[in-house]
Amino acid sequence: MSAGDTRPIGIFDSGMGGLTVMRAIGARLPKERIVYLGDTARLPYGTKSAETVTRYAVQAVRHLRRYDVKAIVVACNTASAVALPALEAALSPLPVIGVVGPGARAAVGATRTGRIAVIATEGTVRGGAYALAIHQLHPGAQVVQRACPLFVALAEEGWVDGPVAALTAERYLSDIFAGDAASRPDTLVLGCTHFPALAGVIAKAAGPGVALVDSAATAAEALAAVLEARGLAQHAGGGAPQFLATDAIERFARVGGLFLGQEVPAGSVELVDLNQ
Amino acid sequence: MSAGDTRPIGIFDSGMGGLTVMRAIGARLPKERIVYLGDTARLPYGTKSAETVTRYAVQAVRHLRRYDVKAIVVACNTASAVALPALEAALSPLPVIGVVGPGARAAVGATRTGRIAVIATEGTVRGGAYALAIHQLHPGAQVVQRACPLFVALAEEGWVDGPVAALTAERYLSDIFAGDAASRPDTLVLGCTHFPALAGVIAKAAGPGVALVDSAATAAEALAAVLEARGLAQHAGGGAPQFLATDAIERFARVGGLFLGQEVPAGSVELVDLNQ
Repeated sequence: MSAGDTRPIGIFDSGMGGLTVMRAIGARLPKERIVYLGDTARLPYGTKSAETVTRYAVQAVRHLRRYDVKAIVVACNTASAVALPALEAALSPLPVIGVVGPGARAAVGATRTGRIAVIATEGTVRGGAYALAIHQLHPGAQVVQRACPLFVALAEEGWVDGPVAALTAERYLSDIFAGDAASRPDTLVLGCTHFPALAGVIAKAAGPGVALVDSAATAAEALAAVLEARGLAQHAGGGAPQFLATDAIERFARVGGLFLGQEVPAGSVELVDLNQ
Repeated sequence: MSAGDTRPIGIFDSGMGGLTVMRAIGARLPKERIVYLGDTARLPYGTKSAETVTRYAVQAVRHLRRYDVKAIVVACNTASAVALPALEAALSPLPVIGVVGPGARAAVGATRTGRIAVIATEGTVRGGAYALAIHQLHPGAQVVQRACPLFVALAEEGWVDGPVAALTAERYLSDIFAGDAASRPDTLVLGCTHFPALAGVIAKAAGPGVALVDSAATAAEALAAVLEARGLAQHAGGGAPQFLATDAIERFARVGGLFLGQEVPAGSVELVDLNQ
C-alpha cells in the first residue's frame, strides 16, 4: 500500500478557536499532517465587515498554500460565512472546506421539530449564512439567530464555567428557550469555534432536550469525504503539526492549548507576516 | 482677538473607546475642532505584540496627519504604553499626547497611601508602562497591575451594569482589594478607554474609600497646556467633528455613541484605508 498523498492539510482560522476543529480533524484523520494558521494579528473577524474579512482571509489562505497543502479547511465561522466563494476562487482547484455547511448539516440531522437556534459572532449572524444553509437542506426549518460576542472573550479568558459564564449564557439564551417544548428550538448550533469551550453553561441555559451541535466533527467528516473522493488521503504516519500565527505567538501557545485540548509548546509556533 | 490656530486636533484610538477621551477634550476645549480615527479593522490592540501595535499605530497617525492636525492625542492606552516614542518620532515636530503619563499623574495626585492598582489590557499590563510612569513621579509607590480583558467585551456589548458586569468586576478585583485599609490600594487607575463605562460596578467591587482615576480628563488638561504653551489654541468656534474608521462604520456609529455620550450619526463616519 502506498503512503498516499503525504502533503499536509491546511487549517485557517482568525485566531486560536479553530484549534477545536483541528482537534476533530486529528481524531478523524490521525494520519494526516496539519499546518494551522491563526491570523492573530487581526482577530477577531467576527466584528469586521464582510469585505475586510474576505480580504484578510484571502491573504491568509494564499500564505497557507506555500506549504504545499492538498486541501484547506476554513475553521473560522465568520470567514466561512462571508468569504467562502472568494476563498474557493482564490485557491481553485484546491478543495476548500468551510464549517458553515457542515454545521448546518449537523443541525438538520439533529432536529426533530425543525426549530433551530444558531449562536455566532455578529459578522456571522449579520451575513445569515447559517440560516441560508439550513433552509437549503430543510426548507421548512424555523431558524432563530443570536450574536453572542461575550462568549468569545470568556473562552479566551478561560472563564468557561462559574457564575459569570453561566449568567452570560442565561442572558443571551433565556428568551430564545423560554417557550414550552411545542414552541422552543430543539437544536442549538454553536456557530463559532470558541463556543464549544462553553458547552456546559450553554447547555444548562438552553435547558433539557436541546441538542447542541458544532461543526468541528462534521467538518472533519466532510474533509475525510473530499480526500477520499479525490484520492488525496494519506495512509502513512502523520507527523508533527506546524503552527503559524501572525502575532503574539506566546499567547497563541498559552491560550491555544485550551482549544486544542493538548499542550501547544511555546517554541512550536512560528510568526508569519501575511503582507509579504 | 484672532481666531488662533484653526487646524484640528487629531485623536487616534484602536477603536471606539477613545471617544471617552474625545468627550473629555470636547468638555475642556470646546472651541477646538476634532478629527477622530478609530482603527476598527485591526482592533483590539490590547492582545497584540508591542511590535504589531507600534506598526499599526504609526500607520494610523501618519494617516491622521493628512488632515492638517496641529496635535495628536493617542487615546489608546495600549498604543500609548508601548508605541509613544515611535509615534513621537514619526510625527516630529507635531506634539503627541499619550494617555499613560496623564493617567499616572492623576493616580499620584489621588493617592494618599501610595498604594495604586492599575487595571488595563494584557498588552498594557505586560509592558508595565503605568507602573514605570507612576514610579517616576512617586518612587515609593506600590503598584499592582491586573489585565481585565473581559471589561472590553462587556463595554462593547453595552452590559455595563447588572449581574454579569458586577460578578466580572468582583472576580477581577476582589483579591486586590481584600485587605484592610492599612494594606489595600486607595487608588484604582482605569487604564483602558473602555473601562470608565463600567465605573459603577468597578467602584463597587473595589469597595469604599478607593479613588477611581482615568486619564481622559488629565489627558485633556495636558493637551490644553501644550496648545497654550505653543500658541496653538483656537479661540473661535469649533466646528463639527470628523469621524474616520478603518472598518465597520455602522457599528462605529452604533457602539461609539455609548462612549462619546452623544449620538454618532450613522452617516458621519468615513471609511478610510490605512494601507494606501
